[in-house]
Amino acid sequence: MQRPPLYTSVPGRAVRPEGGGAIHRALPAEVAVALVFDGSTQAVMMATPGDIRDFVTGFALSEGIIASPDEIESFEEVAQPGGIEARVWLRGDRGADLTARRRAMTGPVGCGLCGIDSLAEANRPLPVLPETGLRLSASDILRAGADLRQHQPLHARTRATHAAAFLRPNEGIVLLREDVGRHNALDKLLGALALAGTDPGTGAIYMTSRLSMELVQKAAIAGCPVLIAVSAPTAHALQLAEATGMTLAAFAREDGFDLYSRPDRILTEVSDVA
Amino acid sequence: MQRPPLYTSVPGRAVRPEGGGAIHRALPAEVAVALVFDGSTQAVMMATPGDIRDFVTGFALSEGIIASPDEIESFEEVAQPGGIEARVWLRGDRGADLTARRRAMTGPVGCGLCGIDSLAEANRPLPVLPETGLRLSASDILRAGADLRQHQPLHARTRATHAAAFLRPNEGIVLLREDVGRHNALDKLLGALALAGTDPGTGAIYMTSRLSMELVQKAAIAGCPVLIAVSAPTAHALQLAEATGMTLAAFAREDGFDLYSRPDRILTEVSDVA
Repeated sequence: MQRPPLYTSVPGRAVRPEGGGAIHRALPAEVAVALVFDGSTQAVMMATPGDIRDFVTGFALSEGIIASPDEIESFEEVAQPGGIEARVWLRGDRGADLTARRRAMTGPVGCGLCGIDSLAEANRPLPVLPETGLRLSASDILRAGADLRQHQPLHARTRATHAAAFLRPNEGIVLLREDVGRHNALDKLLGALALAGTDPGTGAIYMTSRLSMELVQKAAIAGCPVLIAVSAPTAHALQLAEATGMTLAAFAREDGFDLYSRPDRILTEVSDVA
Repeated sequence: MQRPPLYTSVPGRAVRPEGGGAIHRALPAEVAVALVFDGSTQAVMMATPGDIRDFVTGFALSEGIIASPDEIESFEEVAQPGGIEARVWLRGDRGADLTARRRAMTGPVGCGLCGIDSLAEANRPLPVLPETGLRLSASDILRAGADLRQHQPLHARTRATHAAAFLRPNEGIVLLREDVGRHNALDKLLGALALAGTDPGTGAIYMTSRLSMELVQKAAIAGCPVLIAVSAPTAHALQLAEATGMTLAAFAREDGFDLYSRPDRILTEVSDVA
């Protein structure tokens, strides 16, 4: 079977007080993607059916299944009637670890775990980010914001997908991934960075979405010290950013952005830059 | 412990080319909510900590754990250090059903299920909606869109939360629920409708978000024949709406909306209304 298309053009009817009429819209695809490690499904996500290798690699890193893409022995993408199987086989020793972990796993879904234990599982402690000396200027952020759209071909077609971008000081956006889901977009970006051998500690992640606490978790686990979003963080996302020592910028628009935790990594004054 | 607040005011710094300065923003809360049935956790969701009874009721209906709120014997909301426990005890016979279902459950998370079976599980067939004779006028939809904001107190504070509203012909918005997550907002709305004894077949659901296939699933299971959104549906959401016989309107703004599947339920012409 062929991989499903990234979007589909559909007919519709525009209803407007002054008339309207027939239209066509490009709607983004959304397919079930089974993330399968050593023959067993770890998760099924509704996702955009592109960059699947990046996706499963980023997911495996975010979930602590692997610490490096080197631990993946082989990858296969298999289109099925109900979606896509992303089949990963781990290097022998990692595979054994995963089997042991899965046996001990206290997952939250229908697992028989009581409420208090389930909440503890959902609030796992995060690492404190190491100081890498990274600094970005305010214009690095403003320029990346202005450049985002030209790196989002699927959004240009559909106006309905999120993106996660990675930018570096004076270099701008070096990598970007798109998905109907913001969490998937970030996993794809983190997987792509790892596969390219790019250290997430050397730049900032820029999200076109709001910031949930899970996005902060993923960025922290990847070791990225600066997270920027065009929209609002939740209060919990900000708490986690503070706890892990992450710089959090939000409401990033053409005319500026707001800085919350660890503002010292962003050089906002001419005198800072000089 | 007290229930966490719905939002928190935090200090920040506005960075603008022309200056900026100190600011305060109200950020929406996002807490782990454990949905616990008969002492065992069915799911943990990151959610806005309000309308928890509606949430757990709607979730139980959407997931087929109950067919009616009457099957809930008791409900308790317990604030914990890591979030909120929503504890539901089911009527004796339903509790036994759930235990049996859980034993047979082939959940997608670390479950040992192979990829093909997991994809089949993610693509469960939906019921075809019965014909209720429901019709809405274009002005019902336009008026509801114009009224949405005044029913969203949390969004007014934070500009960062989604809402799911229920509207009826000539009545406008009769119920609305807010959450940082659009799927949670819809579960809260469906739970609130069920607890109020309001049949979702008598009106339309209006979402402030994009439409994922899961939102169509939830609306179809609840028996609501019209789903409206301010933003785009995914291609898969539209396919599901077509398969289940649901009217899907999207890109709903002040000046109109687009109609996709089953447009006959929306009276768009003066001659239709007369």
